[in-house]
Amino acid sequence: MNKPKYHILVCTSSRVNGQQKGFCHTKASVDIINNFMEEIEDRGLGGKVMVSNTGCLALCEKGPVVVIYPDNIWYGGVTADDVDEIMNEHIEGGQVVKRLEL
Amino acid sequence: MNKPKYHILVCTSSRVNGQQKGFCHTKASVDIINNFMEEIEDRGLGGKVMVSNTGCLALCEKGPVVVIYPDNIWYGGVTADDVDEIMNEHIEGGQVVKRLEL
Repeated sequence: MNKPKYHILVCTSSRVNGQQKGFCHTKASVDIINNFMEEIEDRGLGGKVMVSNTGCLALCEKGPVVVIYPDNIWYGGVTADDVDEIMNEHIEGGQVVKRLEL
Repeated sequence: MNKPKYHILVCTSSRVNGQQKGFCHTKASVDIINNFMEEIEDRGLGGKVMVSNTGCLALCEKGPVVVIYPDNIWYGGVTADDVDEIMNEHIEGGQVVKRLEL
């Protein structure tokens, strides 16, 4: 299969029973995922970069949490305003955003 | 941070609006994630192996989809009965389960 070059996971506290509650969700993680989706489309990276919401990533006190695979880089305390920097530096530039890394 | 050795993603069709609808969800993906959680606990791998539910992974016709990171191995058509094999072969044995690989 044609795997994405980058798979961005955003904790949105989605529970398997359909509820969506938790720290990351209260901290506007849905805005984070929406911003990633917009940036991926605006930059024409739709086939190369994928973004997915996830259930709790068990680092609530460090949330909202974003993970970039297959690089295995975990970011914490991410805001919707940080999305542009992550796209520029990491996804397009190949550099870890050190100030957000867990 | 202490990253998990393996992060298992299971598509449960969780939507960011809190709904949980879609192909993988209808195909009992919640049973898949529950089986992974039980196997991780039974095998004492709680600190090393993490499992997360995700939103749609955009391969619905090949679902239910399970992804193992950071290996970047994508499995399709997974059933709850396949969990034991994935745990034995991949997570504990380090070998890709070829018959399920996408």
